[in-house]
Amino acid sequence: MKRIVLAGASGSIGQQTIDVVLHHRDAFTIVAVSVGHNIAALHGIIAQLSDLRMVCVAEQSDAQMLQQTYPSLAFCWGEEGLLQMISSVDHDLFVNALVGFRGLHPTLCAIEHDKDVALANKESLVSGGELVKAALAAHSGRLYPIDSEHSAIFQCLQGNDPKAVRRLIITASGGSFRDRSRKELTDVSVEEALAHPNWKMGGRITIDSATMMNKGFEVIEAHYLFDLPFDQIDVVVHRESVIHSMVEYCDHAIIAQMGTADMRLPIQYALSYPKRLEMKNARPFDFLDYPSLHFAPVCFERYPLLKLAYAVGEKKGNLGAVMNGADECAVELFLQKKIRFLDIEELVEAAVAAADYIEHPTLAELKKSDAWARAFVRARQEGACK
Amino acid sequence: MKRIVLAGASGSIGQQTIDVVLHHRDAFTIVAVSVGHNIAALHGIIAQLSDLRMVCVAEQSDAQMLQQTYPSLAFCWGEEGLLQMISSVDHDLFVNALVGFRGLHPTLCAIEHDKDVALANKESLVSGGELVKAALAAHSGRLYPIDSEHSAIFQCLQGNDPKAVRRLIITASGGSFRDRSRKELTDVSVEEALAHPNWKMGGRITIDSATMMNKGFEVIEAHYLFDLPFDQIDVVVHRESVIHSMVEYCDHAIIAQMGTADMRLPIQYALSYPKRLEMKNARPFDFLDYPSLHFAPVCFERYPLLKLAYAVGEKKGNLGAVMNGADECAVELFLQKKIRFLDIEELVEAAVAAADYIEHPTLAELKKSDAWARAFVRARQEGACK
Repeated sequence: MKRIVLAGASGSIGQQTIDVVLHHRDAFTIVAVSVGHNIAALHGIIAQLSDLRMVCVAEQSDAQMLQQTYPSLAFCWGEEGLLQMISSVDHDLFVNALVGFRGLHPTLCAIEHDKDVALANKESLVSGGELVKAALAAHSGRLYPIDSEHSAIFQCLQGNDPKAVRRLIITASGGSFRDRSRKELTDVSVEEALAHPNWKMGGRITIDSATMMNKGFEVIEAHYLFDLPFDQIDVVVHRESVIHSMVEYCDHAIIAQMGTADMRLPIQYALSYPKRLEMKNARPFDFLDYPSLHFAPVCFERYPLLKLAYAVGEKKGNLGAVMNGADECAVELFLQKKIRFLDIEELVEAAVAAADYIEHPTLAELKKSDAWARAFVRARQEGACK
Repeated sequence: MKRIVLAGASGSIGQQTIDVVLHHRDAFTIVAVSVGHNIAALHGIIAQLSDLRMVCVAEQSDAQMLQQTYPSLAFCWGEEGLLQMISSVDHDLFVNALVGFRGLHPTLCAIEHDKDVALANKESLVSGGELVKAALAAHSGRLYPIDSEHSAIFQCLQGNDPKAVRRLIITASGGSFRDRSRKELTDVSVEEALAHPNWKMGGRITIDSATMMNKGFEVIEAHYLFDLPFDQIDVVVHRESVIHSMVEYCDHAIIAQMGTADMRLPIQYALSYPKRLEMKNARPFDFLDYPSLHFAPVCFERYPLLKLAYAVGEKKGNLGAVMNGADECAVELFLQKKIRFLDIEELVEAAVAAADYIEHPTLAELKKSDAWARAFVRARQEGACK
């Protein structure tokens, strides 16, 4: 029985993690969750999880109120509460389904307590890849990817010598504006940007798909997860997102993982690895639904943030935290209709260009860089509005 | 250094095996070859292989002549000579690149001498699957597939529990007549049938692709290689033959192997397994060459020999040998323009229907069944011509 602590339980990945666990009660159990502000969802989660012992929420007031309703559970709050939960609750796997830079510290905390980590939080590696790498080297836990692209690569690497890898090929849907030129992006609306052709996802990741910032994050994640230089990590546009990603080996064999776009597969594989468990309550992939699959090269001029991510990934230091912080903030401003779509790219590029470079930042310095980038973006946007 | 005995050295797979070995002289060496009647090719082969010690040819007269030209080599002849070569030459891997039913006995001989076998000879498993399975169970050697489809499946199985397999998905190009209905096949010519859309291959396998008899053979091969029932082995039509085959697991993940249609990859993997070696003197796969990949269900009414192969595979006994013998003979008659394309199917079906069933045939009985099937096809064709 694998005991799981789940951070971000009320989000899309969190809910699907619970679904996987409930379909495999003989293999997994969730002993602690965090939910942030979504108290409404929390009641349902508590009702579903009989082994739950501890819950973390964002606000102290919520924690105190909940404690009265659920006297048998322990409640904590805020970032400190989350770190305390990870370090005090006995468990085997920490599932990090948090969104954003705030996912980094919990990842580091779990690794430092020798826990395995199933990682859906891209920002842990985009912002803090070097710190995570160092923590993994010093402790016994392992990192398992939950992102569908990285889970695909992880699956395609099984049974092979990592030294035989020629390159990783990450597939990209191209996002909501893949059939538009840059010129046609000047006045696109938030609603158009949120209409992803293949999936319904959270707001930020949908916008990050449209700019391919998300794909850039994935390139950096892949670099850390699979320990390969950036010139061995390629992106190919694949509209249907049926092939989730691939590994090309030195003998030119390409191993690909494909299937339906159901995040429960990568979640379940991260939980059950190295075993595979039956996928319950889901339909297997049917080629008749996808009679043709398409592939095209990615154009860096069309997607400057993907190009930027490669450069930032190479330079390391605090630039990943800057890029991510600027992007989180810029996307938020776009979703609030305060800036235009193409402003996201301009703001993120400007933040990276303006940032003071720190070669080996501490976690505290990364937090500062993140905060600086957000402030930079906000100030520049406000300046532009004057 | 892996010492290799190569049967069928002058054929397409044999030549490519030599190419792989010569590109990896530090890993492999060929110590014995058989070539049948192709003495012209043999001189070139002898010049290339410095560790060669023994050569088998089809005819005693050729062997005697060659012995005078190459006094330092040992020569033998005929089927007996080949078996003698396999059993007497010290080696690590027997590569069976023979074509047709006559490949079965050498496969059994190598396994019985505890050799690993890299198998390009489909007929070993189609005709003698049960005997090969029993021999493998009683000896220490392993079977490695060289067929591109089975190599793909073998690659996709690495790092996974065989019990987690939900089904194998073998891809089929559809052959030279894939865009024609059965009605349009009545008067097709040998030349049209030989024009395979994706590859240049030998005459028999190209015709067997057009009837999908070949795909039926592959289904039976897969059954024996991977120990799965026939209802877990599916065929999907994939025109471009870029995905060489796939494995679907119980969690609905599909792992696929794709790449260029270069037989040196499956040959090299069978030789180097579990390692992968660099592919030399070849171009890696480029998605730009294949901007779209297509998939379609296979229609058993369109390809009755594929349907027949499933039934024959289920029934086992001597029926695989009958089906293969009838097909070898019928394809030969078609290539000699003595019968029409659709007669191949009719003759093979008739032979299987008319054969006396033997549940547990010996090798000698399989040889009789093979000879019977050929005689049946010839007699029926001659009868039809009267």
